Amino acid sequence: MLPTVVMQRAREEFLDWHGTGLSVMELGHRTPEFIGIAEQAEANLREILSIPDNFAVLFLQGGATSQFSMVPLNLTAPGDRVDALYTGLWSGKALKEAGRYCSVSVAASSEHNHFTAIPNTSDWQLSANARYVYFTDNETVHGMEFQQTPKTGEVPLVSDMTSNFLTRPIDFSAYGLIFAGAQKNLGPAGLTLVIVREDLLGNARQDIPRLYDYAFNAKERSMANTPPTFCWYMAGLVLQWIKQEGGIPVMEQRAIARSSKLYQLIDASEFFSNPVTTGSRSRMNIPFLLRDESLNNTFLKEAKSHGLVALAGHRSVGGMRASLYNAMPEAGVDCLAGFMADFERRYG
Amino acid sequence: MLPTVVMQRAREEFLDWHGTGLSVMELGHRTPEFIGIAEQAEANLREILSIPDNFAVLFLQGGATSQFSMVPLNLTAPGDRVDALYTGLWSGKALKEAGRYCSVSVAASSEHNHFTAIPNTSDWQLSANARYVYFTDNETVHGMEFQQTPKTGEVPLVSDMTSNFLTRPIDFSAYGLIFAGAQKNLGPAGLTLVIVREDLLGNARQDIPRLYDYAFNAKERSMANTPPTFCWYMAGLVLQWIKQEGGIPVMEQRAIARSSKLYQLIDASEFFSNPVTTGSRSRMNIPFLLRDESLNNTFLKEAKSHGLVALAGHRSVGGMRASLYNAMPEAGVDCLAGFMADFERRYG
Repeated sequence: MLPTVVMQRAREEFLDWHGTGLSVMELGHRTPEFIGIAEQAEANLREILSIPDNFAVLFLQGGATSQFSMVPLNLTAPGDRVDALYTGLWSGKALKEAGRYCSVSVAASSEHNHFTAIPNTSDWQLSANARYVYFTDNETVHGMEFQQTPKTGEVPLVSDMTSNFLTRPIDFSAYGLIFAGAQKNLGPAGLTLVIVREDLLGNARQDIPRLYDYAFNAKERSMANTPPTFCWYMAGLVLQWIKQEGGIPVMEQRAIARSSKLYQLIDASEFFSNPVTTGSRSRMNIPFLLRDESLNNTFLKEAKSHGLVALAGHRSVGGMRASLYNAMPEAGVDCLAGFMADFERRYG
Repeated sequence: MLPTVVMQRAREEFLDWHGTGLSVMELGHRTPEFIGIAEQAEANLREILSIPDNFAVLFLQGGATSQFSMVPLNLTAPGDRVDALYTGLWSGKALKEAGRYCSVSVAASSEHNHFTAIPNTSDWQLSANARYVYFTDNETVHGMEFQQTPKTGEVPLVSDMTSNFLTRPIDFSAYGLIFAGAQKNLGPAGLTLVIVREDLLGNARQDIPRLYDYAFNAKERSMANTPPTFCWYMAGLVLQWIKQEGGIPVMEQRAIARSSKLYQLIDASEFFSNPVTTGSRSRMNIPFLLRDESLNNTFLKEAKSHGLVALAGHRSVGGMRASLYNAMPEAGVDCLAGFMADFERRYG
């Protein structure tokens, strides 16, 4: 979902961007027009997130999944150790891929509680010599989100923020690298953001595909080859919108308001339940179960007739899941909450 | 440049695709709606190009440049030999990258004639044991295009068709793999097509990023991770347009008509010149020089005031370059030809 005003603006200038007579899709990536779009997007991102000057911002292709390989191929040598927090489907995929390239030590896992609670910091078994500590800031499928920045001393954090990027402030002093696929809070699928501390660049393995080298992409200012220009432009419009709305503080307030409303309804209900412990709950993705699972299909069908779609949980966990990204208006949550309360009255 | 009717259609359904109330950008990639869009695009591509059933079609990210690595990482083992035809900037880049992974033998080169003629077939020094013969079907920067499918016996061809894809028929019996970045003739930047013979799959090197394995992408039907959905949709609209216009035969006739008009003007002129020999000339990209190079900036400035943009040659060769892709209407060529004739009258 993208903000309505962004979509309207994109539609207005779809055939003629700023009087050029061309669509953004038709602008060459090395034209002054597109370079202006690209630089403005980066400047707005840096301002919104207060990204320090010693971090490079890369606009890449490949999706977050590409980063599961790219991170270890750039930040480790064979045999190097990496710590990972295993808190759900996405961190699981990432650490499996990283394990092909370096020694991954699971410092903490939520597997024993079926991914319903982020392990207590005191139980983490961090290695002294880890290159970085990897975690998934928000687990989309399991609906868990880190509420604080993990503390790992001198060892830099690397985090997949695909599904909660731009919804809370980031303390860059703790991070070596952050990445995010665009398609949740930033723009259309096909663009991947990487924000990386510059002193970590330049150690990529020699044999990797050239486009998998962060330093090369940084040197070429993300234009080593033709970038996904239209996605980059759309991300720029979203960033402008966030800035105009009041930046990250406003996005965060709204995320808290939206998710609180739904958690309150679920916790007050005897019909719906959310399995995640209070301190680990995501503001973005709220999985919930119906007491009577045989009503799942009825729930989905009736929801659709109210214009409420994409509510089925991931196939690996079943049940339902509400996703409340930045573009979701409060009215959307109210509509869902109203429908759920009514459904419970009728079937509960 | 994209066809006007395609852009208008995309604009019409930009906010509401087929009554769903959602933009295509907002459709999840695993929804029946998007899977329908994706499958229709592939079906139309297969029909338009008569792609045999034993070829897989992949819709990937990363651009043609990513294929410079992906091809050798999938189709060779270390030490394997590959033949390459070196005919310009793009084949040069590709064979340099391939050389990092296997033994690349330059079977023929146009370097000695400054990339103005494709070497005679009789002069090619093909290896008996090459895994494949690599070539760039159309060299965008130097304006050279293969007029016939290279004959290499049992050794399969691998070709970068980024800049002339969908403008002429392809004899798949000679090919092992074809790839094309979308942004010339197929859709917006951010999508890369790979058409690969299925018996060549499954031999990727073990240590490559998982997303660089063709077999894995084929198995996952190009949805191993979130694909660039909007670009895929736009490509689908372009393919539908090509089909409605009459398919590849019509695209080819138009390409011949457009380019012939410009070559005739250049050859008849004493002011403009094209350095490429007749049998090697591209239908897509026509580089040309002004007799008096000090007029280059005047030419570009006056052209722009006639709405003729993107005419500067690549920085590596200088001069001018007209690009005449499928979406270019005949009126666009007429406008350019008229301006050039007038410019010669006034300055020649």
